[in-house]
Parts: sequence; C-alpha cells; structure tokens
Amino acid sequence: MPLQNKKENLSEWYEEVIIRSQIADYSPIKGCIVYLPYGYAIWENIKNEFKKYLEDVREVYFPIFIPKSILEKEAEHFKGFKPEVAWVTKAGDSELEEPLAVRPTSETIIYSYISKLIHSWRDLPLKIVQWCNVVRMETKATKPFIRAREFLWHEGHTFHKSFEEAEEEAIKRILQYKDFVEKNLAIPVIVGKKSEAEKFAGAHTTYTIEALMPDGKALQCGTSHNLADNFSKVFEIKFQDKDEKHRYVFQTSWGFSTRLIGAIIMVHGDDLGLIIPPKIAPIQIVIIPIYYNEDEKNIVFKKCLEIKEELEKFRVYFDNREEYTPGYKFNDWELRGVPIRIEIGKKEVEEKIVTVFRRDLRKREIVKEEELEKRIEKLIEEIHDELFNRAKNFLESRIKIAKNFEEFKKFIEEGNFVIADHCGKIECEEKIKEETKATCRVIEFKNEEPLTGKCIYCNEKAKYKAYFAKSY
Amino acid sequence: MPLQNKKENLSEWYEEVIIRSQIADYSPIKGCIVYLPYGYAIWENIKNEFKKYLEDVREVYFPIFIPKSILEKEAEHFKGFKPEVAWVTKAGDSELEEPLAVRPTSETIIYSYISKLIHSWRDLPLKIVQWCNVVRMETKATKPFIRAREFLWHEGHTFHKSFEEAEEEAIKRILQYKDFVEKNLAIPVIVGKKSEAEKFAGAHTTYTIEALMPDGKALQCGTSHNLADNFSKVFEIKFQDKDEKHRYVFQTSWGFSTRLIGAIIMVHGDDLGLIIPPKIAPIQIVIIPIYYNEDEKNIVFKKCLEIKEELEKFRVYFDNREEYTPGYKFNDWELRGVPIRIEIGKKEVEEKIVTVFRRDLRKREIVKEEELEKRIEKLIEEIHDELFNRAKNFLESRIKIAKNFEEFKKFIEEGNFVIADHCGKIECEEKIKEETKATCRVIEFKNEEPLTGKCIYCNEKAKYKAYFAKSY
Repeated sequence: MPLQNKKENLSEWYEEVIIRSQIADYSPIKGCIVYLPYGYAIWENIKNEFKKYLEDVREVYFPIFIPKSILEKEAEHFKGFKPEVAWVTKAGDSELEEPLAVRPTSETIIYSYISKLIHSWRDLPLKIVQWCNVVRMETKATKPFIRAREFLWHEGHTFHKSFEEAEEEAIKRILQYKDFVEKNLAIPVIVGKKSEAEKFAGAHTTYTIEALMPDGKALQCGTSHNLADNFSKVFEIKFQDKDEKHRYVFQTSWGFSTRLIGAIIMVHGDDLGLIIPPKIAPIQIVIIPIYYNEDEKNIVFKKCLEIKEELEKFRVYFDNREEYTPGYKFNDWELRGVPIRIEIGKKEVEEKIVTVFRRDLRKREIVKEEELEKRIEKLIEEIHDELFNRAKNFLESRIKIAKNFEEFKKFIEEGNFVIADHCGKIECEEKIKEETKATCRVIEFKNEEPLTGKCIYCNEKAKYKAYFAKSY
Repeated sequence: MPLQNKKENLSEWYEEVIIRSQIADYSPIKGCIVYLPYGYAIWENIKNEFKKYLEDVREVYFPIFIPKSILEKEAEHFKGFKPEVAWVTKAGDSELEEPLAVRPTSETIIYSYISKLIHSWRDLPLKIVQWCNVVRMETKATKPFIRAREFLWHEGHTFHKSFEEAEEEAIKRILQYKDFVEKNLAIPVIVGKKSEAEKFAGAHTTYTIEALMPDGKALQCGTSHNLADNFSKVFEIKFQDKDEKHRYVFQTSWGFSTRLIGAIIMVHGDDLGLIIPPKIAPIQIVIIPIYYNEDEKNIVFKKCLEIKEELEKFRVYFDNREEYTPGYKFNDWELRGVPIRIEIGKKEVEEKIVTVFRRDLRKREIVKEEELEKRIEKLIEEIHDELFNRAKNFLESRIKIAKNFEEFKKFIEEGNFVIADHCGKIECEEKIKEETKATCRVIEFKNEEPLTGKCIYCNEKAKYKAYFAKSY
C-alpha cells in the first residue's frame, strides 16, 4: 500500500512513514513515543558524531528532580516553564513535603550546585554537558519527535569570567550546531539571534538555527543561550578573580534534541518513504541477493558475505531473509530510507561487478568489485551533497522579502520564510502572530541591517530585519 | 589531610573518598547525587565495554512514565515496587486524570506495547535493551551509588518461543555479567539463583551475581530474571507458532546499574584513596613532569608531550599544572586512583627512560622509553590481576560453612559470606533475617546440594545450600 502523498498531506505522511519504517511508534502515554531500534540508532549516531565537537566539554549527570523552591528561584525562567512542568507529589503512599519537578531543562538544578566547583579564576572556564531525558507536559497537540512530552537531548552549561567570553562561547556553540546539522544531517539552516519575544526564559540572548520544513513552517533545530549573570546572581555563583575580588560568573547553556530526527524525516523523505542522510544512517548499505535456484543462492550468498566483509568500515546489512522476494525487499528498504543498496545476482558474481542503487536519485550503476569501496566512499559524499542541495534549493526558493504587510501576510500564507523589517517590540511581534500565526524565527548573523528602516507592522523605526514564519 | 581509615570506618571512608576524589557529590535532592565528570566517565567506560556483549540485542527507548493502570496490571510486580514509586500527579497547574509513575523499571511499559512487534514465531527471539535512568524513592537510608533514589542502568528485555529458551537466555546474561565484572572491574562474584523470598517481583526465577564488600556485607551487582509467561499472560503477548496456534511468549529481563561504581570504590580503594581498575579507568596513566628551573621545564614538558603521543592508545592525562608541586600531584592522583603514573624529569630525558609507578602496589620501576608501550600493556593486565586476586583472596577468606545456627550467627556477626543448608521456605528465611539481619544472597550454580540435609534454622529437610550474608 503506497504512503500518503507527502506534498499534499505532509502531516499524515509524516506520521505514517514513522510507523511503517519502524522508526518509532505511539505509546500508551499521551505525547510520548516508543523509540524503536531503527529510530534509536539514528539518535546514537547523531550523539556519537556530535561528541566529536565536544572534546573541550566534560560529561556529567545531575538529578532528574528539581525541588520547587529551586526551580522557581529565577523568576523569568520559572514563568517560562511552569505551565509544562510534571510534578511529582507522592512517593509510594506518602505526600512529599515539597513537590519535585521532573526536569524540563537543568539550569536551576545545576546552578544551585555548581558553586561547589568554582572558587578561583583558575577554575574557569568550566564546561559541562549531559545527555539525558527531559519532560515538558505540552498542552498543544504533540507530534512524534517534533513536539513531545518527553525527549532526549544534550544540554551544555558553561561558566566564564566575563560577559564577552560567555558571548563568544554561545556563538561558538550555535555555529557548531549549524556545521553539524548541515554536514551530517544535510539540512541547511539559518543561524542567528532570537528576538526579545522568542528568547529562552531567563537568557540575556538566545541564538538559534532554523530550518524550513516542506510545508513552509520553520523548525528550531538547536539553541544556544548567553545567560550573562542572570542566573549567577540568583544562585550566588562567584569566583575570586586575579585581583582577589569576588565576581559573579557569566554563563551559557545550549542544546539540541531528538527533534532533529523529525527534521531529517520531513526534509528528506519522499512518497516512497524515508531518505536517511548517509552520514548518520543506521544502515548505510543494504545488500540484496538475487537468485532463482538453490545453486545460484549458494554462490550469491557467498559473494554477498564477501562484499559485506570488504565493506566493513561502513554500516552494512545483508538481507538474507528467504521468505521475501527481492522486489519486496527493494520496497522495504526504500521505505526505510537506506541510502545505498547493493544488488548481487549470478551475473554480478560471474563478471566481478555489483549493481549499486542510490535511494536519493533512485538510479542504478554498475561498479567493478575492486573499485567498490572507493566508489561507496564517494557515493556517500555525493548522496549527502544531493540531499543538502535539494534542501538548500527548496529553502532558497521559499525565502521572500516583504515590502509591506499585505505582501507579508500573503507570503506567510503561502508557506515562506519571510524577511521583513521589525521594530523589535514584544507587543508588535504579538500582534503579527495574532494576525498571521507567524513569529520572528531568527535575526540572521551579519545580516541585521533593516531594508527600508520601518517596521513591517507598526511602521515605527525598524531595529533589524528578521526571518518570520509559521513554525512547529 | 588523610582520609578516614578504611578498615575501621568503611562507611565514612566511602563517602569521604567519593567527595574528595570528585567522583560524585550530594545534590539538593535527598538520595540523589551529582555525577561529576570523573565519576560519570567510569560509567561511560563501563557502558562502552559492556556494549560489546550486546551485539545480538537492539537498543530502544521507552517513555519514562508508566500510567498507574499499566504498572498495577501484574499484581506481584506492583506489590514489589509500589512503596517506592514516584508519582507524577500534576502537569503545570492541572491534576492529571491518571497518576503517572516515574519508571522504577520498565517491564510493564514495554510489555504493554511489545505485542505490536511480535506476530509470528519468525519475530522471536526478540531482544531489546535500553540505557536509561530509573527512580525508586527508597525509604531506607541512601548511600551514593549503592542505594540511590535515581540511578542509571541498562535493562534488557527478551521474548522467546519457549520456557527453555528464556531460561537459557537468563543464564547467558548472568554469566555475561559475571564475566564482565570480573574481567573489567576486577571484582570476583558468586553467581547463582535467588531464593523465593529474594527473587524479583513478578519473576519465575531470578539469577544474581553477588560480591562481598570489605565490611562483610554482600552487594548484588546485577540480576537476570526468567519471567516465564507471568507477564505475557497479563499483557496478552502472543505469537503464532509454526503449527499456526497462538501461544504466549516467554520472557527475560536483566540489568546492572551505576551501583557497580560503588562496588569498585569499596572493593579496591585503600587509605590513600581510590584504586580504579585499569580497564575502565577514565585516566589510565597520568604523566607528571619534574623540574627545578625553566630550562629543565622546557625539555621535560617536551618529553612528556612526546610520551603522551606515544601512548595515545591508552587514556593518558598530562598534568601540566604549574601551581602545584610534583608531591602534591602524586597524592592527588593517588587519591583519585589513577592506576599508572609516569614521572619524567631531567634524568629520564637524558637516559631515555621513564619512571613508572603503579598505584596498587605503590611501587616504582624504570622502563626504557622504547619498551614503554609494551610494558604499559602488560602492566594494565598485571594491575588488573593484582586487584582481582586481592579481592578474590578476601572473598575466599570470608566464606564460612556453618554447621549449626549458633555458628551461623557468629559467622554472620563477624562479617562473612556463610554457606548453610536451607529449607527454601519464605517464612523460615524471614525468621533468619529477623534474628541475624542476614538474607539468602545466592544459591550457587552447580553447588546446590545440601551439606547435612537439614535446614540451618528450622531443621526441616533442606532444599539446597546457599550463601547468606548481611547486605546493602
């Protein structure tokens, strides 16, 4: 049975392809999904690849529970997270004296502790990260990976001597996210700053990477916050400086989550199923044997195993299931988005060649066995580039510059990333949201200068130009 | 300031060494600790090493929340965990319609879902594992790593066609645990079966590995359960067999946790601090430069960096802090239990040698630079063996055979692992516990035959002989 049409019914297509490719499934708990092996493996690959960027950061683990009195210490932060907090109020049959929040993010629990590790300027910068689960009891409709009540993520937290150093760190991390997402997930993003209305609860500045989904909605793919001394003043995190004076530290926090898996699915998939970017694909190559009798089976299986061995530096799966036809297997692995398929039959064995199929272009080519490893290496790059360029072309085709609010509304309605001048006022942004459902997604780095000088909505002096879109 | 004396004050020594070596620290939440980078790295190493045993098992992730109605489905299981469940009753300001348990273990949430993945005999065996956090709101006194309200673990869950296959799997896993713990953590364990009174809530049979701590208390280090069809009948998990009949699956579950870090600390440490087994040590080798002036410093630092490079296949740390003396650093890294220290001064540079110090025996040796890599490789094995043999000698010296209950009480009081015949009745075991605080820890594989034939306590017919001890 064919999938939904992706272009016409993105939302239905998305949920169907997730279930049918066995990436994930619904669980008995509203808004929580089950990560099946194929989906979880994508997250593990993302994790392992991204850890290469974190060599200067040390891994820790803080408790999942945050006492209410600690969570509410930073007022803005608490206000932002309060509506979505899951509260533990009972242990066994006993009421707890103080409710415990299941962490929606760990700033407060970490910062209530961290002064034990920071004494002098020598202890700075301190950089830690934890890979864990977090819970936000979303009141809006949930969507697998994209908006979930529990998700997996990493959260980095750093501590610095000065505002400038924290600022540099926050920017370094968001640029790493852009680099990682583009080079590994083949998803182009716009990188820049959040507006006042959209920044993280408790942050001085929030940086973001934003991707555009096929329906023209933006998806925030990772954020990095310069927290300045907002939290250190509340949690009394001080260090003794070289001049022996005690000063508050400056901080950053940053993270991305399993939401990225949702982005991969939406951006790259087609009407036949997933297309998983080769750098993080759980299976990069599937080998399918083709044979018509027992004799052929034997020589073909033997060759398949040899080829698997030869390609051991890649993630290869040999589909030796005998109860399915090659045609069934082709469809199955195309649905599941394996980037490269190798087909081996009698002809291939005799001629010392293999047939290589690439999922992105759905094209076959013949490769000499002796050249296979080199070809696969190159093919992984080619498939990555093809996916990235497709997505980039789409993104660019959907960036529109609005000269007036009528145009703005029209472009938003058509599903675009709309560039417009803005005054930067929270109330003005709220009105735009009311009228169009669009929000300010990102003020692009090095591209802030207003176009006309006047706010697209209120006509007052523009502070910057920014990208607006509806969003997930 | 010296540490507490380990022999005299094990409990105080234990908590002090954890804090001072920066393995972990207390958090603002009762019974939850902060895993600092050095302690968390031990867990990561354990995880990475143990994953090598799990190539036939696929990683998944299930929700942290379990609705009450699902958790209570298997009556015995619920009874066992109920007193310690953390209940989420509110989301933001709203009461939840049904309380959600924060998982104390995931049998019920996984088994309420799993029938979606199991249809025919072809889908079996199905083997999955998740590495995650779990919460048990302990009412007893907590102790870092050993008894915590939140801990990290893996839980494996497997599904089989027959009781026999499940039994084989459960035994395979407990033997893997024994192998892993002995070969990587250098902790000898007794492996076998739990008594009826001590088995997992909901299991048909529980297998266990038990280690003996220096105070003579046993520590359960990992368990594996043959669940038979106890859960599959409750959760309706069936498969269609080759004869087309629908049958219930047979299951196992198994796990070990961050408690192992506690075992490492207690078993191997000494009055100078930790001794971390070399196979899982976050830092296997620390390099300390020794110099008396700026010229020496330059040539010594250069050599240290060269040696670090040469030893890159090990986990090496070059301690180049200039504000501390070599003596301070020696003590510091001995406290933190780094198994091998390399000292490099002017003499070493000139003679192309290095001084190698091993933490376990606190002995120095001179090694030619050209032989260093080979020597380190061997030394890691030697240190491992030394730690294992020490612990094994201790364990063996504390195994006593009790011929009557008076002897039994005396041996238990002295802190031994006491072998005695037992009738196997739950009530009889309870009485032993009341009188001596000892419980039946393990009925050793292939060593079940009663000694005298009569229960050590009630004098009725003995069912087996078993190891008794007080325990954590």
